[in-house]
Amino acid sequence: MAVSDGQAMHDVASELFPICRSITGDGVRRTLQILQRHVPLTVHEVPTGTRAFDWTVPQEWNIRDAYLLDEAGQKVLDFRENNLHVVSYSVPVDTRLTLSELQGHLHSLPHMPDAIPYVTSYYERRWGFCLTHAQRQALPEGTYRAVIDSELRDGSLTYGELILPGSTSEEVFLSTYVCHPSMANNELSGPVVTTWLAKWLAEQPRRYTYRIIFIPETIGSLTYLSRHLEQMQTKIVAGFNLTCIGDDRAYSYLPSRNGGTLADRVALKVLQDTHPDFIRYSYLDRGSDERQYCSPGVDLPVVSVMRSKYREYAEYHTSKDDLAVVTPPGLQGGYGVMRNCLELLENNRVYVNTRLGEPQLGKYGLYPTLGTRDSSSLVQDTVNVLAYADGTRDLISISDVTAIPVSRVATTVQTLVAAGLLVEA
Amino acid sequence: MAVSDGQAMHDVASELFPICRSITGDGVRRTLQILQRHVPLTVHEVPTGTRAFDWTVPQEWNIRDAYLLDEAGQKVLDFRENNLHVVSYSVPVDTRLTLSELQGHLHSLPHMPDAIPYVTSYYERRWGFCLTHAQRQALPEGTYRAVIDSELRDGSLTYGELILPGSTSEEVFLSTYVCHPSMANNELSGPVVTTWLAKWLAEQPRRYTYRIIFIPETIGSLTYLSRHLEQMQTKIVAGFNLTCIGDDRAYSYLPSRNGGTLADRVALKVLQDTHPDFIRYSYLDRGSDERQYCSPGVDLPVVSVMRSKYREYAEYHTSKDDLAVVTPPGLQGGYGVMRNCLELLENNRVYVNTRLGEPQLGKYGLYPTLGTRDSSSLVQDTVNVLAYADGTRDLISISDVTAIPVSRVATTVQTLVAAGLLVEA
Amino acid sequence: MAVSDGQAMHDVASELFPICRSITGDGVRRTLQILQRHVPLTVHEVPTGTRAFDWTVPQEWNIRDAYLLDEAGQKVLDFRENNLHVVSYSVPVDTRLTLSELQGHLHSLPHMPDAIPYVTSYYERRWGFCLTHAQRQALPEGTYRAVIDSELRDGSLTYGELILPGSTSEEVFLSTYVCHPSMANNELSGPVVTTWLAKWLAEQPRRYTYRIIFIPETIGSLTYLSRHLEQMQTKIVAGFNLTCIGDDRAYSYLPSRNGGTLADRVALKVLQDTHPDFIRYSYLDRGSDERQYCSPGVDLPVVSVMRSKYREYAEYHTSKDDLAVVTPPGLQGGYGVMRNCLELLENNRVYVNTRLGEPQLGKYGLYPTLGTRDSSSLVQDTVNVLAYADGTRDLISISDVTAIPVSRVATTVQTLVAAGLLVEA
Repeated sequence: MAVSDGQAMHDVASELFPICRSITGDGVRRTLQILQRHVPLTVHEVPTGTRAFDWTVPQEWNIRDAYLLDEAGQKVLDFRENNLHVVSYSVPVDTRLTLSELQGHLHSLPHMPDAIPYVTSYYERRWGFCLTHAQRQALPEGTYRAVIDSELRDGSLTYGELILPGSTSEEVFLSTYVCHPSMANNELSGPVVTTWLAKWLAEQPRRYTYRIIFIPETIGSLTYLSRHLEQMQTKIVAGFNLTCIGDDRAYSYLPSRNGGTLADRVALKVLQDTHPDFIRYSYLDRGSDERQYCSPGVDLPVVSVMRSKYREYAEYHTSKDDLAVVTPPGLQGGYGVMRNCLELLENNRVYVNTRLGEPQLGKYGLYPTLGTRDSSSLVQDTVNVLAYADGTRDLISISDVTAIPVSRVATTVQTLVAAGLLVEA
Repeated sequence: MAVSDGQAMHDVASELFPICRSITGDGVRRTLQILQRHVPLTVHEVPTGTRAFDWTVPQEWNIRDAYLLDEAGQKVLDFRENNLHVVSYSVPVDTRLTLSELQGHLHSLPHMPDAIPYVTSYYERRWGFCLTHAQRQALPEGTYRAVIDSELRDGSLTYGELILPGSTSEEVFLSTYVCHPSMANNELSGPVVTTWLAKWLAEQPRRYTYRIIFIPETIGSLTYLSRHLEQMQTKIVAGFNLTCIGDDRAYSYLPSRNGGTLADRVALKVLQDTHPDFIRYSYLDRGSDERQYCSPGVDLPVVSVMRSKYREYAEYHTSKDDLAVVTPPGLQGGYGVMRNCLELLENNRVYVNTRLGEPQLGKYGLYPTLGTRDSSSLVQDTVNVLAYADGTRDLISISDVTAIPVSRVATTVQTLVAAGLLVEA
Repeated sequence: MAVSDGQAMHDVASELFPICRSITGDGVRRTLQILQRHVPLTVHEVPTGTRAFDWTVPQEWNIRDAYLLDEAGQKVLDFRENNLHVVSYSVPVDTRLTLSELQGHLHSLPHMPDAIPYVTSYYERRWGFCLTHAQRQALPEGTYRAVIDSELRDGSLTYGELILPGSTSEEVFLSTYVCHPSMANNELSGPVVTTWLAKWLAEQPRRYTYRIIFIPETIGSLTYLSRHLEQMQTKIVAGFNLTCIGDDRAYSYLPSRNGGTLADRVALKVLQDTHPDFIRYSYLDRGSDERQYCSPGVDLPVVSVMRSKYREYAEYHTSKDDLAVVTPPGLQGGYGVMRNCLELLENNRVYVNTRLGEPQLGKYGLYPTLGTRDSSSLVQDTVNVLAYADGTRDLISISDVTAIPVSRVATTVQTLVAAGLLVEA
């Protein structure tokens, strides 16, 4: 992959950054339209009121403008300056109130006085403004006018879907979300890395069929699951929830509910081989759509491969999670690890020796002809891969038992298949 | 439970303390009579000569008096002062002998010169006296008269039994022993705690039927097993051997023979949650009736939950194991842990979600309606219990995987069952 | 066993040391003839060209003489002084060449300037001389005459076999190799210890049938496997590859491919009990005939019990691996450990209690009749062996769970069988 992929992803993230996304509304649609320039997403609309298991698709929310005026009519807060200033799903309001009355509608972070927090109220009718704690403390006494020009009405929930058929109907699942306003690591890193993976996958020969979705978190994944559950449970062999994959400070892994799925094994193997200092979380630390994908009775093999995990970095869910937190090398690294995971999935088959006993490697040009004190160590990878390609172990298992990085296992297997010494089991 | 339970148990232990118990005889009967004031024990008598697997119920032993007179006719040792002075099951004797001849019938502990040891000779006809090493060394040369007014004759072995029926025929088994003379932790703590558990159980709704026995150790448990083996093997799901459960210096656990039974899981979970510094012994450290209950071919799921384990505290099997070693808080603590074990057994069922995907907790009043940076952690217990209540895990397993104390798992499950979000699997 | 066994084995090794062995030829035959004085080996000849899985028995190689003459006609190197001077399987040559031309045919070890390396070229037609690096550096410029009076012609591969029938047809397999010229630990220790084991086994009652072979490494084991594979896979319960078992610096264990076979369990148990500081290698460290015996599809339960493992001691595959490296105590120790392994295999049965509950050990003279504070610990081994002789555990498993050395488990079991308290399951 080119280093410029990181920059190109960052450019798209920058283009998407100002859009005011929420779990429904035109912000999601505009986001998907921009991504459609890169990959042929199909956009689906699911009407308000549609049931999704225990949930119901809510009314659609759109917002044109919002501001807070002081007594002099000056804009103290302006949605157009930063869309985080409005509590997501705020009902429309145009009212005058004293500072004291206003306080019940304000949200700030005393411990991060320069950050605007991200606050939502999807399922309870409320309105509110978010601001830095410094701004809040500087508000003088007096009467304010609060205006939120928003709209809540029956509409639909919007998501994007891309199916890339493979040579088999077994599926790999990629899910990312498009429902947060101007935040970079915990939002835009996911869609842009997923888009770049889809671009790359489209050009590869594929054993697996890829199901790739761009959805609002929670209500979106529930909606999608409720429409495709049987197909997903039958076909998906491994899935990845793509979020927080664009900064350059860490690599992280969050397992499926009970661990040990193919997705877990692939993610762990790639991270262990390429970034052995990665952070290994527990399913108890979860907080994204694996909550739905791995829930009892759904039980899809879905894990998260991340850079700095949501809730674990200071800027999370504030205006500080911006395009300086997410960097071109950060996106590049996240994209690279995920691509390694998908490559491994495609390669991770079970092989078996075509010979009993060790083959005479010299006949195949795979062994030095002169036996010296050290010659036996020269072909160590070859003989160790042969020793464990016994019709029961996939490449990951061979890598585990031999301690050979799995990418080297894969190239060794290729050589041995070419020599006729291994066949797929 | 009231703190005064500890005192009440200590009072009964004090009443039982002076009685000269052995594996048969009137001491056992008097002990059971006193306990019958608290719980409706059925008393059984098994005749001398009855076979119990490889063993035979021995002759019944009773003793009226015993003393050692010096040349002046003064009582040097007096059974009425401390019944440990006589080797248990001593044959009757009235003889004169020199100090040198007498030495072969004396038992003392050089390393604990102020303690009278506890010595028995159930299966070999002997007589003997036990005394402090200080006493022994002070004995002057001369002729002594040894008198033991005991009786060994065909009679019976006595035990008490209480069956508390539950809503199912599956059984929980409690076994304690009544065969040691005046010793407190390694004897009376067991029967009094078991009695208080039986009193409490009698007042509870019970899923399980409780089989509770007060028996002489070894020959008593073998006798009971030989009479009820098939029933016990068919019905018992968990059992506890109650011994050494009255001092206040430690909590201890001794597993079943191969570990991993429901009794083991319950005991470990309660001790880990409530007394994480408990001492974990091996089955190799065993020494009480689990030797019979867990023997090959019997294989009942029986563990021991103790305070300071037999053989592991200085006063064990001596006159120093008295009512100062066993304390009201010590008994209270032992009783409390065992009650937690029985409560957990009753609650420890397998539940399953009624919804696919995470339920919309807000609909049930179980979720904050305002999404802020921290709200997702507020309902952590709820969502984690839901995540692992998947129809395969009981409460202990959910506690293990979530690291939530099992009592909190139980209350969370109750809330979720009430909300209709969980049902028993 | 007598200490003189070590000396006697060393004497035979000394007799075998000067013979120029290779994977075929008269050196192997002479070696087997000498061993036939001690055990009744059957010698087999397998013709050149015979297929053995992926391999073919090569032409037979014999050598009469070899030397290097300097310009003055002086012997600079003489095969008769040390047969390591000639690359094994060198084609015949009689040629004159300059020092510079000669260098391409010389092998030495710069890091061990006083050692002659051991070099082979079985499957590529070559000739060459091996010498110390000191010798090589002292060679003056000039013209040399290189003479190797060897012969490569169709002949056969030679191996020895001994079958010692037991009371069952289940087999224990011992394999050692006879294909290296004058080296002691990495060659002669194996055949002499195996010979002494065979002598001892011949005099024992045997449950198992013993299949014992003396073969050339690799091509020999492949040839033997290709002729007996089905029989070996059906019958062999445990096997040992005997190599590097004669020095006195370490004990070593190399597992079977996946570990956990009966051979692995026996070797680990004996080494843990008798030499707890033994070195535990991985199958990745392999380098002898377990490469064939444990290969996928062959999968025999074969391990290596060694003293200092090939490749892990400085003298390996050089003239320094001589009869000072291998010592009488070293051979004695290796023989002793392997004998312990075979004794354990013969004894390692599954037993079960004949009584329910603990037996009344006193009836069998196995328990003190006087119950004191310490008496219960006196019979600990007895009761622990009884507790775990439950019809599912063999002696190794009982030793594992009780931490009683397996030899003491075996004697305890004997006592309990004699008392009628255990029977074979």
